[in-house]
Amino acid sequence: MEFEEITPGPLLANIDSPADLKKLNPEQLVEVCDELRDFIIDTVSIHGGHFGASLGVVEMTVALHYVYDTPRDLLLWDVGHQAYGHKILTGRRDNFHTNRRYGGLSGFPKRSESEYDTFGVGHSSTSISAALGMAVARDLDQSDKKVAAVIGDGAMTAGLAFEAMNNAGALNSDILVILNDNCMSIDPNVGALKEYLTEITTSKTFNKLRDEIYDMLGHFKSAGEKMRKVASRLEKAVTTAITPGGLFQALGFKYYGPVDGHNVDTMRRYLEDLKDIPGPKLLHAVTVKGKGFAPAEREQTKWHAQSSPFDKITGKSLNPDKTAQPPKYQHVFGEAIVELADENENIVGITPAMPSGSSLWPMMNKYPDRAFDVGIAEQHSITFAAGLAAEGKKAFAAIYSTFLQRAYDQVIHDIAIQRLPVVFCIDRAGLVGADGPTHHGLYDISYLRSAPNMVVSSPLNEQELRDMMYTASTYDDAAWAIRYPRGRATGMACREGFQPVKIGRGECLREGGDIAILSFGPMGNYVIEAADDLSEDGIEVGHFNMRFAKPLDVELIEQVCNRYEHIVTIEDGTKIGGFGSAVAENLSDKPYQIPVTIMGVPDRIVEHGTQEELHREVGLDPEGIKAKVHEVLKMHSLKT
Amino acid sequence: MEFEEITPGPLLANIDSPADLKKLNPEQLVEVCDELRDFIIDTVSIHGGHFGASLGVVEMTVALHYVYDTPRDLLLWDVGHQAYGHKILTGRRDNFHTNRRYGGLSGFPKRSESEYDTFGVGHSSTSISAALGMAVARDLDQSDKKVAAVIGDGAMTAGLAFEAMNNAGALNSDILVILNDNCMSIDPNVGALKEYLTEITTSKTFNKLRDEIYDMLGHFKSAGEKMRKVASRLEKAVTTAITPGGLFQALGFKYYGPVDGHNVDTMRRYLEDLKDIPGPKLLHAVTVKGKGFAPAEREQTKWHAQSSPFDKITGKSLNPDKTAQPPKYQHVFGEAIVELADENENIVGITPAMPSGSSLWPMMNKYPDRAFDVGIAEQHSITFAAGLAAEGKKAFAAIYSTFLQRAYDQVIHDIAIQRLPVVFCIDRAGLVGADGPTHHGLYDISYLRSAPNMVVSSPLNEQELRDMMYTASTYDDAAWAIRYPRGRATGMACREGFQPVKIGRGECLREGGDIAILSFGPMGNYVIEAADDLSEDGIEVGHFNMRFAKPLDVELIEQVCNRYEHIVTIEDGTKIGGFGSAVAENLSDKPYQIPVTIMGVPDRIVEHGTQEELHREVGLDPEGIKAKVHEVLKMHSLKT
Repeated sequence: MEFEEITPGPLLANIDSPADLKKLNPEQLVEVCDELRDFIIDTVSIHGGHFGASLGVVEMTVALHYVYDTPRDLLLWDVGHQAYGHKILTGRRDNFHTNRRYGGLSGFPKRSESEYDTFGVGHSSTSISAALGMAVARDLDQSDKKVAAVIGDGAMTAGLAFEAMNNAGALNSDILVILNDNCMSIDPNVGALKEYLTEITTSKTFNKLRDEIYDMLGHFKSAGEKMRKVASRLEKAVTTAITPGGLFQALGFKYYGPVDGHNVDTMRRYLEDLKDIPGPKLLHAVTVKGKGFAPAEREQTKWHAQSSPFDKITGKSLNPDKTAQPPKYQHVFGEAIVELADENENIVGITPAMPSGSSLWPMMNKYPDRAFDVGIAEQHSITFAAGLAAEGKKAFAAIYSTFLQRAYDQVIHDIAIQRLPVVFCIDRAGLVGADGPTHHGLYDISYLRSAPNMVVSSPLNEQELRDMMYTASTYDDAAWAIRYPRGRATGMACREGFQPVKIGRGECLREGGDIAILSFGPMGNYVIEAADDLSEDGIEVGHFNMRFAKPLDVELIEQVCNRYEHIVTIEDGTKIGGFGSAVAENLSDKPYQIPVTIMGVPDRIVEHGTQEELHREVGLDPEGIKAKVHEVLKMHSLKT
Repeated sequence: MEFEEITPGPLLANIDSPADLKKLNPEQLVEVCDELRDFIIDTVSIHGGHFGASLGVVEMTVALHYVYDTPRDLLLWDVGHQAYGHKILTGRRDNFHTNRRYGGLSGFPKRSESEYDTFGVGHSSTSISAALGMAVARDLDQSDKKVAAVIGDGAMTAGLAFEAMNNAGALNSDILVILNDNCMSIDPNVGALKEYLTEITTSKTFNKLRDEIYDMLGHFKSAGEKMRKVASRLEKAVTTAITPGGLFQALGFKYYGPVDGHNVDTMRRYLEDLKDIPGPKLLHAVTVKGKGFAPAEREQTKWHAQSSPFDKITGKSLNPDKTAQPPKYQHVFGEAIVELADENENIVGITPAMPSGSSLWPMMNKYPDRAFDVGIAEQHSITFAAGLAAEGKKAFAAIYSTFLQRAYDQVIHDIAIQRLPVVFCIDRAGLVGADGPTHHGLYDISYLRSAPNMVVSSPLNEQELRDMMYTASTYDDAAWAIRYPRGRATGMACREGFQPVKIGRGECLREGGDIAILSFGPMGNYVIEAADDLSEDGIEVGHFNMRFAKPLDVELIEQVCNRYEHIVTIEDGTKIGGFGSAVAENLSDKPYQIPVTIMGVPDRIVEHGTQEELHREVGLDPEGIKAKVHEVLKMHSLKT
């Protein structure tokens, strides 16, 4: 489609870098904020993108770049979904419409994109650690530049953020943490910390009480020597009690706030004051996700991101797709786990802050006691699942491939070593599209396959996903990982109910020719398409849906070797150490060894784009498969 | 050596299970504690083992098993070094001398060993997560059993523990966390949390102040209606202020303590009272690591564990080894990094709570501003290193292989994707010995090799370790992992200074025969030994020290294929996805492909024992190599 040009407001039109912003009077910042907010809404309403988070930090972003001397001063954005305003103010306004598109700007801060992006990000909760590293480097260089990290209240619940606070408090480095408190992750935020912050921000009598107490202490101090001494000590205790943020003070941070994060003047003044206060400090800013766009303020999870154009007043989709589409894999999971839970009361579900993304909501709604959103806490989600499994529950951990990386030790140490039969439902496995490198799920086959006591499977289609989930729910001998991609399944007519799959067994989908293609997971559907095309051109190939990277169907592979001249493996994951590697390992010293060509994601960073664009780029699509078959045929004809 | 039998005291001799303990009067528990402590000291003084931690929790252990109905009630030990007393009281007294020995008891709680070991452990900070999972399972089963987790103040600094607290506070499950506060990890504990706890436990005026304040509030309450209302509100605020543990209360836990963890009567009474208090609660017990053994109380890090017999009064070693021994790899690292840091002021060192184990102490002592113990916080350690690297520092992260698992996402997301040239010095890579399955470093080659922008290397000996460290310190194109094992290097005469190694290049150590052995890391020394032996028997093999699993020396491999009939690879890591797998992948579709036999650790849990015993068990020793060569030769002679 053709895109209309988006015209920035008159102030924003002249801001090509933060230096231009600094030329304005403080009074003009409100208008800059309005223009920036409109520009974000205009752009996303046409081009799509994440924006709830960015709308929530418009004032904070303007204030930060106004007060700080970026890029000399170092500004870090946690997760990075909220960095749109930052990008627009730092020289990327005119390219901003390419955001998240193939070859365009990244949806996240990225070091190679701009000197203003000090630290690349995508996963949550890294900013304080990285900022502390930078602050220490600054101190070693005897520089006086400032370091500030913006982190959400959701991201603050992850252990990494706590570890960094604990270290920062002890190192006493000069660092500012801005807690962007909007009570949301992608879904509503959960956990004790959230309740704690809510208590701070909603305590209406708070200021009044504080005044009264100071009054009282005054009376005491004038009431004689002994009372004065006691009151003095009391004052210190009371000051701690009546200053919110004791949690952060316990970790060695000075606490400031809560402040209204949508008052740019307040934010500016606070930031200016805090520049002169040394040591670790935290500014607690209260914001509203989606601020300034009414539909997004009302339905924050829905408006976390939008992929298609919408009316920027009503929020209604501009080209609603009326054609029936195949279900997404995540929804196949979400329905199947409820069906399984209906029959098996031992089944429990766990998600680390992704009830929508992983589609655990249906189970959380139907069985609130048996489905758990544990917050942004991937490590805990897996050890928690291990604890449930140790006490006889059948735990399904629904987690994105890229986020499971954060719980790798828990997979090994708490699940695999103890042979606990936890089921991992690994969503967003493979190239994920617009979120790009930080979110691609490329390593799970490799890092799970090397763990003992672990089944690693991937379904060809939605029916196999259901059947694998069912079989895993009845399997108590080891852990079981089921990986499936972002996006839509095949749209096949699924039969009712479930049937068991044979563990470690693949199937032949097609016989013929000298080349056998062994596919792992939904990539097999591309192979089906490619094989049909090749057949029309008179080239036959065999095709095997292997289903399991571990245990590998070694019998089937032996049969393949006896019948074919060459194996091509294909998977939506790194070529290193994955399914193809498993086949190569298995054959490496077999007497019936034949050549194996491994198709997968190459050993480099694959940037963002649509899934289709990325699969094409790396050759993991029907065209790429056909090309590879021709290549192999050519190699063999040269040999013979 | 022959071991004298250890005689338990008269009470302990009759405790075959906690049921026997419960038959005693509360007054007898002091004596049980004395006997238990003596039994631990007697055993460890002869057989070796960790024991500082276990001596510190003798009273806690006795009180817990006296009050709780184990194994029905669920008791979890964090890390598990401190579970010796628990093992002795739960039916393992007479086997306790086999602790940590091949075929004997595990040094850690282990589900397969005893029904009293509810959750296997070895890494820190898992207990609250697992306990919460168990508590939720208990609630689903409508059982009334109790769940209690003992966690150290060091382990509490890891993010996983914080994530679990945050979730437990919100779920409001009935769970008791006992904070075993001894101010120590293996090394002295660090971080803001430690300072916070110290403040609680050392505030001498604390109780007096509390009494005075309550007095004052009483006066106020009797002083008229308006004052009464204010005082009432003040009381709540003050109560929060003067009750320590606000940090834990912020996370939804009720806080109790601090209590003297060495008063068994106090501990017993607290535990009895807390059984009736529902919801998440934390008991803060102050203990001394090594309690009751004077040398261990004085030098807690040194006495964290002892591997050889010692005099149980003086602590002096009973058979000091006077022969000069080769240096440990960790000390080679520790010296080399100081030498490198002398020359290159950009070099910084980081360890997550292992300054002794990783030997970062020499650098911390010489360059305190450039070497950082960040506490038990593996995730943070790596993102912190990334932040330092992003600002131009050459960060060396010294970390055990098994603990780097906990920072896998940080390796991918913060280092590899951004191509930051951090150096990972990975200690304890391979089979580690007595610590067993939770501590073996078997997966790093596999999980690092699949990450882009990552060099993965392992030195043959101490000189190569030094040279790799030097070369990595000058390399800015990608991250670089250097893995080396627990234990001693070869003892070779190292030349002065450093020489660069060629990245991705191996070397031929020996030519001959039809079989080429490609070794990765110090395993090559076993190959040298085996090849010498084989040669004496008239069998020649080629031997190549490959040095790099990534990038692989594909030219050298091609030469090998052209010259030899069969490749055998060997590495001290899992056979799946590691160095051998890299060779198999590389050759899988090459025209010069020859068979590859992969030697490595098999895909199962390898238990504990000495490194030698374990290497022998899995065939990764000179005998195993020779046997494998004979096997391959036989295979080939059958074929021809």
